[in-house]
Amino acid sequence: MKGFVFHGPGKSAWEEVPDPGIKEPTDAIVRVETTTICGTDLHILKGDVPEVRPGTVLGHEAVGEIVEIGGDVHTVQPGDRVLVSCITACGRCGYCWERTYSQCRGGGGWILGRVIDGTQAEFVRVPFADLSVHTLPGAMDGRDAVLLADIFPTAYEVGVLNGHVRPGDSVAVVGAGPIGLAAIAMTGLFAPGRIVAVDLAASRLDAAKQLGADALADAREAPEQLIADLTDGLGADVAVEAVGAPESFELCTRVVRPGGHVANVGVHGRPVTLHLEELWSRNLTITTGLVDTYSTPTLLRMAAAGRIPTSSLITHTFTLDQMEEAYDVFGRGADTGALKVVLGGEQHEVVAVRAA
Amino acid sequence: MKGFVFHGPGKSAWEEVPDPGIKEPTDAIVRVETTTICGTDLHILKGDVPEVRPGTVLGHEAVGEIVEIGGDVHTVQPGDRVLVSCITACGRCGYCWERTYSQCRGGGGWILGRVIDGTQAEFVRVPFADLSVHTLPGAMDGRDAVLLADIFPTAYEVGVLNGHVRPGDSVAVVGAGPIGLAAIAMTGLFAPGRIVAVDLAASRLDAAKQLGADALADAREAPEQLIADLTDGLGADVAVEAVGAPESFELCTRVVRPGGHVANVGVHGRPVTLHLEELWSRNLTITTGLVDTYSTPTLLRMAAAGRIPTSSLITHTFTLDQMEEAYDVFGRGADTGALKVVLGGEQHEVVAVRAA
Repeated sequence: MKGFVFHGPGKSAWEEVPDPGIKEPTDAIVRVETTTICGTDLHILKGDVPEVRPGTVLGHEAVGEIVEIGGDVHTVQPGDRVLVSCITACGRCGYCWERTYSQCRGGGGWILGRVIDGTQAEFVRVPFADLSVHTLPGAMDGRDAVLLADIFPTAYEVGVLNGHVRPGDSVAVVGAGPIGLAAIAMTGLFAPGRIVAVDLAASRLDAAKQLGADALADAREAPEQLIADLTDGLGADVAVEAVGAPESFELCTRVVRPGGHVANVGVHGRPVTLHLEELWSRNLTITTGLVDTYSTPTLLRMAAAGRIPTSSLITHTFTLDQMEEAYDVFGRGADTGALKVVLGGEQHEVVAVRAA
Repeated sequence: MKGFVFHGPGKSAWEEVPDPGIKEPTDAIVRVETTTICGTDLHILKGDVPEVRPGTVLGHEAVGEIVEIGGDVHTVQPGDRVLVSCITACGRCGYCWERTYSQCRGGGGWILGRVIDGTQAEFVRVPFADLSVHTLPGAMDGRDAVLLADIFPTAYEVGVLNGHVRPGDSVAVVGAGPIGLAAIAMTGLFAPGRIVAVDLAASRLDAAKQLGADALADAREAPEQLIADLTDGLGADVAVEAVGAPESFELCTRVVRPGGHVANVGVHGRPVTLHLEELWSRNLTITTGLVDTYSTPTLLRMAAAGRIPTSSLITHTFTLDQMEEAYDVFGRGADTGALKVVLGGEQHEVVAVRAA
């Protein structure tokens, strides 16, 4: 089959790789119908995620069809269309027991496209399939489902729920890339008082407005002042960090009111400065997190019912074998206007038949 | 009357000051029976709290007797013995409405000994008396009550409750000064699995053991390793920062397990480094806070019933007019073994009769 292989910083290719096969009785093999590229994949390509070894097939998000299962898989069978989640869960460790699947100690967590071959390929082996794929409701379009593999549950759990968004709240979302936009859409479900989107790019602020932001702030033009003006000088009840940079995290701690929440969603590569000399007395709650995906079944039902605008974030569609072009367009999002790019789906002709 | 006056960094004296009088109808005047010195007062003397103007009487903790009330005070009357809380609450603003009294926007919050004259004096004016003093249950000894003005509710609310300590948890308390020791004592009420105390001073670790710590770690000798060894390599469920220094905060973020809580209690004068490049994916919750004192009535009842070892932290007792000596002994705690020093109480002869 073909897959998108990381060959070390700056080097990658869509190329022939061995077909995956069942290794453990809890594995399933999925034929990838639709996949996507995550900002984290770009970090991997730059060499920012050192645990990813050269030779690894990237990708941790997909919709596809089960083509083979191991002897200890009970909840899905060949022919089922499933969502392959970014988080794999053993289901038996202490963390899984408390539904903190991201921190699975039994061999799961975020492993696809990181420590084992991932979803940017024609087929993928998914360990612990019973708890790591989710059957799609009915004839759900892969484009509506694939963003539920990572960014929507991430924005929801790590941003909105960790941030304790409540009706009437003023919510500042710093960063209007795909995760920030998903956070804006999910915040809208909580009847917020106001959503302020902060970004550098006018096109992303436009998208934020379409997804429900009430106020837009250019990150270069004193967003603190705008947020203060909108909140009687107090600050936002909740600030969601959706960039992964020191400046944006520190902005969040400046724009949140005393007693408020800062929910960090961004993937950071550097330490940040936490101004405890000012913040120690401000009754803040700061959260970090990798998505646990405990909300994924609920979000799938909501998306199937048209209640979450998942596919509205998709700006570009490619065939699977246009992977390299898709990476290029996604990586130059500031120029290309790309938010989420998806590969495959209805435009994907299955040309390779997997060797049985 | 006499009071302890801050005259700018490094300068202070126990000296004659004007008697306080009722300024607002919600004020009460309290004759101070027992007071104490807080680590924060030492910060003020060093000039670390710039909003404290020279000429201010310090102190934000006391037990005393109401001697006069304004026309709009309804819950206490002259002759009542009360706890004067470090937090004053207007009771009418949005923050008070949500019981976040520390962030009161109506003129309260931490004001005593900071922006108005405080409790290290023979008399003190307490604004918003209805919500800022607490009637003592029965004939409670001032020594048993005075540490409920600040350190016990602080350790409880900002440390134990913000840290979400639950039965069975491994709790690391970094810093075994008075606040850390109070946090250890209050953690003990939650049937923890283990309490690990971390400090530099053997005498403080001894005190920690007496108050319920199961394991003691010298801060210079790799406490991370001890805590990892005690928790199957995972880390503590909760880490309480009770020092107020970058090193101790950063230690807390290293010793807490994925999914755990870091509750910052320490008063910080400098920024800290938050290693989000490691912590972004660890599902941490970090809290900061000034005490709201919502727990004070409960803690008073518990202390009156002998269920909280408040006075066990008191190592030295002075008369009120020994204030300067008391500051010296408290400020040299590493040499003197002082934990909490109290002034007044049963040894305090009232020599000044307040001018009516």
